[in-house]
Amino acid sequence: MRILVVGGTGAVGKAAVSKLSKGHEIILAGGKSGDIQVNVMDEASVSAMYAKLGKLDAVVACTGHSHFGPVAEMGPKQFLDGLKDKVMGQINLVLLGMAHVNDGGSFTLTSGILSYEPIRQGSNAAACDGAIDSFAIGAAIEMPRGIRINAVSPGLLEAAAQRYDGYFPGHIPVSNDRVGYAYAKSIEGAVTGQVIRCE
Amino acid sequence: MRILVVGGTGAVGKAAVSKLSKGHEIILAGGKSGDIQVNVMDEASVSAMYAKLGKLDAVVACTGHSHFGPVAEMGPKQFLDGLKDKVMGQINLVLLGMAHVNDGGSFTLTSGILSYEPIRQGSNAAACDGAIDSFAIGAAIEMPRGIRINAVSPGLLEAAAQRYDGYFPGHIPVSNDRVGYAYAKSIEGAVTGQVIRCE
Repeated sequence: MRILVVGGTGAVGKAAVSKLSKGHEIILAGGKSGDIQVNVMDEASVSAMYAKLGKLDAVVACTGHSHFGPVAEMGPKQFLDGLKDKVMGQINLVLLGMAHVNDGGSFTLTSGILSYEPIRQGSNAAACDGAIDSFAIGAAIEMPRGIRINAVSPGLLEAAAQRYDGYFPGHIPVSNDRVGYAYAKSIEGAVTGQVIRCE
Repeated sequence: MRILVVGGTGAVGKAAVSKLSKGHEIILAGGKSGDIQVNVMDEASVSAMYAKLGKLDAVVACTGHSHFGPVAEMGPKQFLDGLKDKVMGQINLVLLGMAHVNDGGSFTLTSGILSYEPIRQGSNAAACDGAIDSFAIGAAIEMPRGIRINAVSPGLLEAAAQRYDGYFPGHIPVSNDRVGYAYAKSIEGAVTGQVIRCE
């Protein structure tokens, strides 16, 4: 398979490809690093990337930053910026990439545990994760040409645990392997419309 | 209680207040009708409404239009417009209204069945509903001064069934009474961080 992993150079992106079987052509896209550069929030940049790459079998989105902060101090602009970054970035990859994915191909999005498991300062991230989960569920039933779509919903990734120190008290960090298997299930399996939880 | 129902003149808004116990002061806000007018997507308009009304015990948000259309024909702008209308409209009411709600008061948001039960052309609505559900779950744990927040998630409302004719095959319309009880549970009960499903 020809697999594009957007955000493929980050911690989740690295985990995402770690359990795929051998023989795939994997293209890593990043903001500044990777095989090809893209700004997922910029429609023109996303479309240009797809035009350059030609046909793909799988697109994996491991991108997005949401706003972390106490809900009582959060402003509408901060909230909307989170939606634009984490939700619209991934949605752009789907809506603008649909025509570039082969029949029977797949999209795999990345949400997160906060959609159902709250932490302090995480209400914007929660909303973003919930939007991505439900979009995958909602879109799957009408994707054209047998294209599948799922969301992988990881807990606190081991590789990122230090960066989020103090935010996730009592959360057992999830191994890269565990997360890798979830992406492999979506990319190489046959499921669609699923939220694949890894906790 | 002093209860503000935004979108209170619509079908869901009418159902929302139908099972509340007597003796509340209910203020209906609408785009063009109701006791007070507000554009929930406009921060200044939302802030002006709250400033006029003074302190409240409960805010109920029954607002929002998402984009309906096949996912294969959906553009990023249509998708973002849905998020701005249905998600940010309700989020604005919470973030800008927090300081105007009395200690121990509540917010009740309105999502919908599409966050977990897909229909054709409903993927944007699904994402909006999922965002609202997860925001209520995420925000509840850190709302200040004992303020509660829940999301009511109704199925196809009996009163709106004709308007959505053909979109919800096989969905059993939900009575106004059933939906009214869900809002009463959130407004008059003690629960917080819940998605109250009515199907």
